[in-house]
Amino acid sequence: MSFEFELIKTCKQSGARLGRFHTPHGVIETPIFMPVGTKATVKAMLPEELKEIKAQIILSNTYHLFLRPGNELIKKAGGLHKFMNWDGPILTDSGGFQVFSLGPLRKITEEGVHFRSHIDGSKLFISPEIAVEIQNDLGSDIMMAFDECAPYPADEEYVKNSLERTTRWAKRCKEAHKNTENQALFGIIQGGMYEELRRQSAKEITDLDFPGYAIGGLSVGESKKLMYEVLNYTTPLMPENKPRYLMGVGSPDDLIEGVIRGVDMFDCVLPTRIARNGTAMTSRGQVVIKNAKHREDFTPLDPECDCYTCRNYTKAYLRHLFKENEILSARLLTYHNLHFLLKLMEDVRESILNDRLLDFRKEFFSKYGYDEKLNLL
Amino acid sequence: MSFEFELIKTCKQSGARLGRFHTPHGVIETPIFMPVGTKATVKAMLPEELKEIKAQIILSNTYHLFLRPGNELIKKAGGLHKFMNWDGPILTDSGGFQVFSLGPLRKITEEGVHFRSHIDGSKLFISPEIAVEIQNDLGSDIMMAFDECAPYPADEEYVKNSLERTTRWAKRCKEAHKNTENQALFGIIQGGMYEELRRQSAKEITDLDFPGYAIGGLSVGESKKLMYEVLNYTTPLMPENKPRYLMGVGSPDDLIEGVIRGVDMFDCVLPTRIARNGTAMTSRGQVVIKNAKHREDFTPLDPECDCYTCRNYTKAYLRHLFKENEILSARLLTYHNLHFLLKLMEDVRESILNDRLLDFRKEFFSKYGYDEKLNLL
Repeated sequence: MSFEFELIKTCKQSGARLGRFHTPHGVIETPIFMPVGTKATVKAMLPEELKEIKAQIILSNTYHLFLRPGNELIKKAGGLHKFMNWDGPILTDSGGFQVFSLGPLRKITEEGVHFRSHIDGSKLFISPEIAVEIQNDLGSDIMMAFDECAPYPADEEYVKNSLERTTRWAKRCKEAHKNTENQALFGIIQGGMYEELRRQSAKEITDLDFPGYAIGGLSVGESKKLMYEVLNYTTPLMPENKPRYLMGVGSPDDLIEGVIRGVDMFDCVLPTRIARNGTAMTSRGQVVIKNAKHREDFTPLDPECDCYTCRNYTKAYLRHLFKENEILSARLLTYHNLHFLLKLMEDVRESILNDRLLDFRKEFFSKYGYDEKLNLL
Repeated sequence: MSFEFELIKTCKQSGARLGRFHTPHGVIETPIFMPVGTKATVKAMLPEELKEIKAQIILSNTYHLFLRPGNELIKKAGGLHKFMNWDGPILTDSGGFQVFSLGPLRKITEEGVHFRSHIDGSKLFISPEIAVEIQNDLGSDIMMAFDECAPYPADEEYVKNSLERTTRWAKRCKEAHKNTENQALFGIIQGGMYEELRRQSAKEITDLDFPGYAIGGLSVGESKKLMYEVLNYTTPLMPENKPRYLMGVGSPDDLIEGVIRGVDMFDCVLPTRIARNGTAMTSRGQVVIKNAKHREDFTPLDPECDCYTCRNYTKAYLRHLFKENEILSARLLTYHNLHFLLKLMEDVRESILNDRLLDFRKEFFSKYGYDEKLNLL
């Protein structure tokens, strides 16, 4: 049955959750990382390559697709899956985060957000109802409610007003969303870095009864320590029988710490963006491929990795491609980085199954070069 | 046996040749188009994708690899095949064409060419012996003699001096090349647009007895009509039992006209370069993907094409990717264009086998929108 979340087990060592979320385009094994395909393409990757590295679900951005090529065009094309040739599950965000990030170009009212396109300056408007309509046109499996993501830092009164508006907007989204058979609408819990406000938001949003819940407003500039603290008191406020999605998080340590704190789903542009900038995530930490020390290094990026890139290419070749600004550089590093995070989540799922996620974290952090003490529960 | 050229048959209708050229990394079915991988990568393509579209041999540029990452590094990597993960045949040019194209940055002497790097202005020198040494380090299956490609237009005396120097340099290349077991050195016939000079160059170069011959100095700005005229009198001067390579040619009509005039091998950046600029070659002529008329066109690029791009994506999606400057645009259009030219050459080979290449030309030109009368024999 679509949108059922099965909680398979909880790790005895860490409390992390192993689950399965059913969508019309397939089952997602959680915890999972979702590669980001902002403009109806995961940059530099083919859908078949995403399957090869076992991507289970990808994310696409409502704001960008609303602007270009437009949700109506994608609807005419038969929906986002068909348009981009991806037959697995897709999650779309609501566009809220992007329009709020426009700063002086946008104005928030109770009705919605007036803003100017970052491309051509044209005047545009997104309301909760419009965000739902756009996502209905896109036909994503998981839609996000139109929320207000408060900046960091922000004072308590601002964050309180903002989360209360987010609740009112969540209600309007729910009312506007008719296609509940094929598209699940997730609610978003806000509240910034204030425990009392997270508690209020979690109560208000979960009372609306969504098929899944996201934690918004984190990874917006606060310290890792603070983010983990907020997670510590927020995830226990969320229903056990629904998937929990931490938005915009994707560094290896944050993924592991998030899972340990009960999160099931993550997304972030980090692996794909740093790949295009020439940085690889490896079992021994980050590799900056342009560094001179790799010039005559005829070993693979990551000695422990069995991905296509690591099986076939040396650091010397990857450095050459990057320095020459060759498209193949972005392809090979993106492939590797996404494979790295997806494999990490596979290892995390296996560690939960074997009740040893804390041991896994210790091993992984020690090799990667993270200081485990920074990430205490 | 390596470097044997088998002339399988001659088309009774057109005189075109069907052949097989044996190299240490495989047999090449001719006539063939060679995708260009200037800097040890065919831009935007993986080696496996080149195999998928049946690329039989690729070309790489000595000048670019000499500058960066340097032939010594590639030698240390185990040669160009291993460095770039391509196990099929590779042809390298001599660097001559590129250094002559540097214009005021280079000075030609009998010893060789002094020039400044187009990257950092450093002073460099390539002689026939150095061109051979670089290509020996790269380990290409087919190497090209270091020649002087005269500009167009150029007066007869200039071209004569230039072709005679090319002959002296060809001798020096031959003497410098020791690895004849694993690498075939091709001679290059020059002579510009002067029949008498082409005759002189063909005589001098073929007297040196190379395992294959190229026609240089064409596709340098002259009209198609003039190029075909030069081919008309040049290919009959070349030995029947050796492959004939027309350098720098790659538009569909030029490939067909070249084959009809007895050419076996071609290379050009055209299909890959125009792909990155958003232009596709199709059975109905060129498609400029950014054009507004493709905005809601949910049909494939080419209704007759069965390549990966045409099987899975619409013009509307490709237009979106191109306008958003997505890497996938370059990937999908490059894949299609190379597939198109390689499939064209496959059709050409089949037409030779069936003694109907002139019929094929007529059908192809009529669909593509070429005026056949412009290309009379």
